[in-house]
Parts: sequence; C-alpha cells; structure tokens
Amino acid sequence: MTAGLPMPVPDPDLPRRVRIHEVGARDGLQNEKTVVPTEVKAEFIHRLAAAGLDTVEATSFVHPERVPQLADADELLPLIEDVGVRLPVLVPNERGLDRALALGAREIAVFGSTTESFAKANINRTVDESLTMFEPVVARAKGAGLRVRGYLSMCFGDPWEGPVPIGQVLAVGRRLLDLGCDELSLGDTIGVATPGHVTALLRAFEEAGVPAGRLAVHFHDTYGQALANTLAALRHGVTTVDASAGGLGGCPYAKSATGNLATEDLVWMLDGLGITTGVDLGRLAATSVWMAGHLGRPSPSRTVRAISHQES
Amino acid sequence: MTAGLPMPVPDPDLPRRVRIHEVGARDGLQNEKTVVPTEVKAEFIHRLAAAGLDTVEATSFVHPERVPQLADADELLPLIEDVGVRLPVLVPNERGLDRALALGAREIAVFGSTTESFAKANINRTVDESLTMFEPVVARAKGAGLRVRGYLSMCFGDPWEGPVPIGQVLAVGRRLLDLGCDELSLGDTIGVATPGHVTALLRAFEEAGVPAGRLAVHFHDTYGQALANTLAALRHGVTTVDASAGGLGGCPYAKSATGNLATEDLVWMLDGLGITTGVDLGRLAATSVWMAGHLGRPSPSRTVRAISHQES
Repeated sequence: MTAGLPMPVPDPDLPRRVRIHEVGARDGLQNEKTVVPTEVKAEFIHRLAAAGLDTVEATSFVHPERVPQLADADELLPLIEDVGVRLPVLVPNERGLDRALALGAREIAVFGSTTESFAKANINRTVDESLTMFEPVVARAKGAGLRVRGYLSMCFGDPWEGPVPIGQVLAVGRRLLDLGCDELSLGDTIGVATPGHVTALLRAFEEAGVPAGRLAVHFHDTYGQALANTLAALRHGVTTVDASAGGLGGCPYAKSATGNLATEDLVWMLDGLGITTGVDLGRLAATSVWMAGHLGRPSPSRTVRAISHQES
Repeated sequence: MTAGLPMPVPDPDLPRRVRIHEVGARDGLQNEKTVVPTEVKAEFIHRLAAAGLDTVEATSFVHPERVPQLADADELLPLIEDVGVRLPVLVPNERGLDRALALGAREIAVFGSTTESFAKANINRTVDESLTMFEPVVARAKGAGLRVRGYLSMCFGDPWEGPVPIGQVLAVGRRLLDLGCDELSLGDTIGVATPGHVTALLRAFEEAGVPAGRLAVHFHDTYGQALANTLAALRHGVTTVDASAGGLGGCPYAKSATGNLATEDLVWMLDGLGITTGVDLGRLAATSVWMAGHLGRPSPSRTVRAISHQES
C-alpha cells in the first residue's frame, strides 16, 4: 500500500461504524476443495481475530457427509482461544444445536432459503419444513441465552427459478425473525443482485417494520457486483456486512471462480469512506496470503493481490 | 445467464441512460503483453460495435517505441468499416494529430496528468509543459471540427506522491477544459479511489461551474472498487463511463493482475438498474472470450467468467 491511500473522504449519508461478520472460516472454507487441517483453521481464526475482526464465524455443525471440509467442528472449537471475539457457528437442526451447546458456543446461525428449489437442493426440505425444523432450534438457543442469526439465501435470484420476487423474500425473512432470530442476513447466493434491487428489498423490510439494524447483507462477487451492492445497503442504513477473508469460497450452484465478497476489498472501501471497522487491512491481507498458501491457489481478492504484489 | 437476471430494479436517483466509452482496444490492449495482429484489432472493434457500444476508442498515435502494441495505428484505422460508431483516437502531440487527421479521424483524446511524478514518468514533461504541448493540438482539432476528450490521470492517488489533493485535480482539469476539451475523463489510474472521494471530487468540479455532463469517469479495478465508485458517480449525475471489454489492460505503474473496469461488470449493474446502454451483454462477453483466446489468458472480468462458465 502507498502511504496515505486510500485517502479517507467520509460520506455524511453513510454509517460511521460497520461491523464485519467474517465468514471465511465457515462459508469460505466449506466451498474450497482443499481440506484444511484443523490446526490451520484454528490459527486462521486466531489470525482473523488478531487483525481486528470482532465476529468470526467459526464452523458448521451440518452433517459431516454434507460438508466434509467442516467435519472437524467438534475438534476445532476447543482449539480456539477466548480472545474476546464473537464466534458464531452454523447449526442446521437440534442435533447440531446439542453439539454446539456441548462445546460452549454462545452464538449460532440457521440457514434458510427463499426458494423451494434451493431448500430442496440444499437440505432436501420444503421452505415450510425447514422453518418447522428451525423453530425448536431457535427457541432452545434463545432459552439458553444464545444469540441467533438467520441466514436467508437466494434473496435476489435463484439458478433454477430466476428472479425471486421481493414479497417472497420478505415473507420468509419475517418468518425467520418471528421464530426469534436476532439478526437476518440477506444473501445473494449466486451474486446476481444490483444496487437498485438491494435498495428495494431493504425498503420492503423497512416498510414491514423491520429496521435496518436487524439486517445484514451477504453478497457474492460472481458478477463483480458485491461492493456496489454493499454501498447501496450502507446508504440504506445497514451496518452489518458479511465478507470472507481473501474472498475465500464460492457457490457450488454457480460454476464461477469467485465467491464471497472479499473482506479486504470491503475494508479498502470502508477505510476510504472513513468508516470504522477495527480491522488492520495489512494484517488481514497477510492472513489471506498465508491461507492461500495452504489452499494452493492465489486469493481472488483484488485488494489482496494488489497489496501483496506491490509489497513483494 | 439465467433468464430474467439481473432483475431490472431502477433507482430514481440515477440517470436513465449511460454512454459507455469503450477503451479496450486502446487503453486495454496498450497494457497487454501479447501483441495482437492488426486484423484481429479491426475485428475486435467491429465486434464491439456490433455488441451495441457506440463509442469505441480505436488506437493511439503515441510514438511507436513508447507503445509498441499500438504501433500499427496507421494500418489499423483504414481497416475499420464505418458502422456508425464514434472512434476516438489518442493523440499526444501535433505530429500525432497530423497522422490522425490524414486518416480521417473525427474525434481525438489528449492525455494529461494531475501529478508531476506521473507527467514525468509517462511523457517526460512537467504538467505545464504537457499542457503547452496540448494547446495547439486541441486548437487545431477543434478548428477542424473534431470532438476532443481530455484524459486526466492519477485523480485520486499517485504511486509516487500518495493521495492527490482535490484542488490540484480541479486546477489541472479546468486547464484542460479551458484549452477546449469537450469532455474531461477523470482517471483513477492506480485504482485507489473510494466512493466518498469520487463524490467529493465531482462536487468540487460542480462548484467550480463544470457540469457533470462534461465529465466522464475512468476507474481501474486494482482494489475492486471500480463499480462502487461508478455507482457514486452516477448518483452525482455523471452519464459517461469508461470501461474496457473483458477488463483488458492494467496499469504499468501498479503491478496488479487487474486493470480497467470491465465493461461486462458495468453492463450487468446498469442492466440491473434498468439504465439503457444499448449493449447486448451476451454478445459483448462472447467478444471478450474470443479476445482472451488471442491474448492467451482468461478475462479478469467476473461477469465474463460467470457467463462463460455457466454456458460451457
């Protein structure tokens, strides 16, 4: 990085602080082909925390056969030191919740779909059946004092169904919130969203009484739109943004080289906007270069590439 | 592409039509290592026009030793059929203008720098000397009825000088406009801009009496910021956006794999915003895949990759 760049020029219409919900260790790794050793995952999470991220989604308690990359959740969690960061874990059902609770998890996430096609493909259930399955999970987690996040996938388009009507997203999203989810992460699983669509969806939630503070956005960079969409969401008042260190991950339902919004690309923009995140960009990018070495492929993050090329 | 995606959701605060100034054949190719045969360049320009682009910057009359890739400008222009598109050419000095006029060019561009460091590195002149050199070029071109664009590089940051003050950009930009340039293209040559900085620079021009209609924006995707910055510029009323088919090109002063904003990534966003461009995205992406074959490397455009992978 050249000193003084990006030059911070705030925009008074945007929030002054953003919380980054780092998903690289879970959503990122679960879509990477190379299986990463448990000790490396633990070090990855420690490094992400040391780079200043305050929420690092750690792993998933999905059935090991469905996501072999994260089959070591029971071994991983005990390796993670308590360094004061939030460590949510994905939990698909009551069995997963039992495992998470036994390991002392303080925060969980459930993963819902707006479309029947993806619900069927992802968890072999209808949307209704999945919500019925999540109901006792969320209730028990809340009863145990845990924080619960609801993911909602295919909020902008679906590879089988095409465009997803905003009313349909709102209906399923409200049901997840009504179950007791503290936060709802609106996912553009195949990366097809554009900024006007983002604004329209957020406005629909607002008009239905869901404040922007209960929403997060989760964009994929499949078509290069993730950061522009994030900007639209910030302008609407969203202050929680999901991102994946180094752009790790992808979507198994869209055969593209690129996956999640890269945390570094996001931090470059937020640093330039003078928005506080607590993240040290150089340290984060160094972590992604280190992890790329373990995965045997360069990071798809433009910012990671630019910083690491310039400094080499 | 899945049918119906991106789903068009207009934003009433954005323009309804955007003119894309396609720079792939000039700014793109000039930074590619593989020298492309003249006939292939001509076909590239024909294909870009057939994809619906109405402005295709064709080549440069810079000294052949400085830009060997474009040393065939005199051979190329006669090969390009008149298919009703604008075909500006870059002209560095009066000798270049003579060549362009002899070949019947109807539109030229000159290339200025905001910083002394880049003026020195790029054309071995001070900023003042470069403007003195451009003065008769612009005057003679305007006298001959040509349209003249002024490029202004390093508008947001410079690899040697770091952040570039907005007042400095405004001062050099106004001098280019005062010479007689019809349009000024504000370039983020090393890709470090962020959206608040873009808005602040455009506002400074507006307050100095330069309307957004005389400005174009030219972003590089080095740090993944190009599309978010474009969105900020559109919100400010800019309606001319530079982009490079397939993301061709790069910046020789920033050793990164990525260069210009990819036209396809831009068109995906504009299509999603319901903003008219006249461009057929599928046809454009196919052109970039074809050119990538000639260059021997995949397109860095996320949209080109996503579309071509999905359709293969």
